[in-house]
Amino acid sequence: MRKFLTYSVFFLLAGSLCSAQIQQSQQAPSPPPPEGTKPASTNIVGAEYPRIDSLRRAFFRVRAPEAQNVVVSLGNVAFTKGEDGFWTGVTAPLDPGFHYYTLKINGVDVTDPSSETFFGAGRLMSGIEVPEEGVDFYDIKKVPHGDIRNRIYFSKTTGTWRRLNIYVPAGYDKDKKNRYPVLYIQHGGGEDERGWAVQGKTDIILDNLIAEGKAQAMLVVIPNGNVSRPGMSGGGYNDEAMAVFREELFGSIIPFIESNYRVKPDAANRAIAGLSMGGGQAFYTGLRNTGNFANVGVFSTGLFGGIGRQSGTAFDPETIIPGILTNPGSFNNKLKVFYISVGEQDPRIEPTRKLIQTFRDKGLRVEFASFPGSHEWQVWRKSLNDFTQKLFK
Amino acid sequence: MRKFLTYSVFFLLAGSLCSAQIQQSQQAPSPPPPEGTKPASTNIVGAEYPRIDSLRRAFFRVRAPEAQNVVVSLGNVAFTKGEDGFWTGVTAPLDPGFHYYTLKINGVDVTDPSSETFFGAGRLMSGIEVPEEGVDFYDIKKVPHGDIRNRIYFSKTTGTWRRLNIYVPAGYDKDKKNRYPVLYIQHGGGEDERGWAVQGKTDIILDNLIAEGKAQAMLVVIPNGNVSRPGMSGGGYNDEAMAVFREELFGSIIPFIESNYRVKPDAANRAIAGLSMGGGQAFYTGLRNTGNFANVGVFSTGLFGGIGRQSGTAFDPETIIPGILTNPGSFNNKLKVFYISVGEQDPRIEPTRKLIQTFRDKGLRVEFASFPGSHEWQVWRKSLNDFTQKLFK
Repeated sequence: MRKFLTYSVFFLLAGSLCSAQIQQSQQAPSPPPPEGTKPASTNIVGAEYPRIDSLRRAFFRVRAPEAQNVVVSLGNVAFTKGEDGFWTGVTAPLDPGFHYYTLKINGVDVTDPSSETFFGAGRLMSGIEVPEEGVDFYDIKKVPHGDIRNRIYFSKTTGTWRRLNIYVPAGYDKDKKNRYPVLYIQHGGGEDERGWAVQGKTDIILDNLIAEGKAQAMLVVIPNGNVSRPGMSGGGYNDEAMAVFREELFGSIIPFIESNYRVKPDAANRAIAGLSMGGGQAFYTGLRNTGNFANVGVFSTGLFGGIGRQSGTAFDPETIIPGILTNPGSFNNKLKVFYISVGEQDPRIEPTRKLIQTFRDKGLRVEFASFPGSHEWQVWRKSLNDFTQKLFK
Repeated sequence: MRKFLTYSVFFLLAGSLCSAQIQQSQQAPSPPPPEGTKPASTNIVGAEYPRIDSLRRAFFRVRAPEAQNVVVSLGNVAFTKGEDGFWTGVTAPLDPGFHYYTLKINGVDVTDPSSETFFGAGRLMSGIEVPEEGVDFYDIKKVPHGDIRNRIYFSKTTGTWRRLNIYVPAGYDKDKKNRYPVLYIQHGGGEDERGWAVQGKTDIILDNLIAEGKAQAMLVVIPNGNVSRPGMSGGGYNDEAMAVFREELFGSIIPFIESNYRVKPDAANRAIAGLSMGGGQAFYTGLRNTGNFANVGVFSTGLFGGIGRQSGTAFDPETIIPGILTNPGSFNNKLKVFYISVGEQDPRIEPTRKLIQTFRDKGLRVEFASFPGSHEWQVWRKSLNDFTQKLFK
């Protein structure tokens, strides 16, 4: 905490900044924290709250002396005001994993000043990481580490410079010759290229899998899948949005990757996956282009329940992917891995199970996995961890 | 805007998320924006406000129907409530460049949901980019682009895994043999390794300079300079904090960089620089180790005015850097570039000018530059742009 005191000295001289009053919330003497609680790992450095206990409840303490009410979106728990101007509240036990949240202070949704921020729901949100007992596949370990590279590329589709992230595995820079397989992975609606890089912990998950020999060393390309042309109607994963995404991927992203990285440029060594909206993109783009992608992963997509389609258009797999039901053999021949996953408490599980059954009845080979949890990152981290172990073998 | 409508459909099914009510602020029909204004480039995708006009005034429009008052920290301008529940306000003309800001809603400092967030003042802040007429050195251009790599390394000092960013210039991956000079650059107090990577636009500035032949191709290492050991007293740039920073740099960061990147490992090809607190770190660590760094850049540090020293300890250059006043010739021999800069409206300019005069009176060679602006990123971007043109030649 002493670090913040020093910071505020610097900033007091800085006329254009405004930190002095903000830092007070860090400096106010705090009562001892509730026993058995620890600060969330998603907090900013030095922030003691929110804290989590062994029951996975989150304890909040927020300074807002002039507020009339403070509510956290995690179960809409209303906080209680103390005489010191701090509001405190405790959530019900939370599911393990990462959750977006906001505070509602006097009816206005805002981020928690104690939390790092994460791009989700189309804006920056607070986030809280709830540990899952016995689960460490996304913890940083003493293994060789790759990196996440933030690159600028030119999109022919949008006519603008855009940024994407790329996970590059340990050893790539040193071997200088080998070519690597590559996974293109998409975030969900309201997220962007930061999703898999930050919330998804792609680098840590792959570092661990590769070090343990459970996954092949691969590059993971993490683009911003929100692509639109001026005047475009729709969005999400209707046919037009999918066509624009496909154009961006094949016209700009893949050529950029293949001319700048030592990746293997054949379908067997290319995979596409995504979560939610991105799962729909992987389904559409992967299965319509099996000559380019022999590996397809679809996590938690609402597409199978008809979400994101033009109004009045139900989901029909054969319409979207001609031949998928009438000629499954050609897909079985071309696809090395076709993988679908969903959270066990996600309402999307019912249409997903139904589709899996339809596929299997028709003889289409598809792997299905479900994980505890709703429509959330813990399911997607586990999906990535599971899917990537099946690839490129 | 239609994109957000689609997002909210997806999120309505997601029990653990909370975006539906947030997205309303994006969806509400807006009055036509004030003439001659454009959305700030620091806004999240799709956000129409804040907007900036040709006088560099910022126009805000924030939905907070239940709030009693809304104030923006940029000049503490109070907003006016409209019947639609939106609060609007206009700042005085702002200095060009990047400014941190927050909104105070009913007395609580929060970020603006329409803005990207930036780590400054020890927390996530909103930020607004105000264009400077005729200045384009930090605009993305059609030139070869390097990248920013986010790496995990182990700190022997803190005993933890930490993250740093590295700018790697275009062409580095392809030439496979050449070694590059390297600049280690530090953020200010309350910031972290995101400062130079995001607010500072280091990648774009270096891409442009290198493409124009104005700067040598170099790597720029952007660590998190907030290093402390458990039980450490102080912080900022007192002697103990400086010793810990030095240990981190020499004991963990430089060995990590030199064993993982093709950099030239000699003083002539190593530079250290920083802003504010980081300028103090560069001054201390660079000038005390001229056998390791022949190039030192100090931007806008408060050190020369005594800020950040132990209480009661005035700034005396000879105490901090033995020989700097009594044996300037040895520094002139060892230093290829010794550069100091500061903003012309920064109160630090007076002690800085005084020190420059003292140095010059003693015969110490030092380059001095000042730029319009206060204690802010526009001065530091210009300092980086200026300093790196002098390096490694």
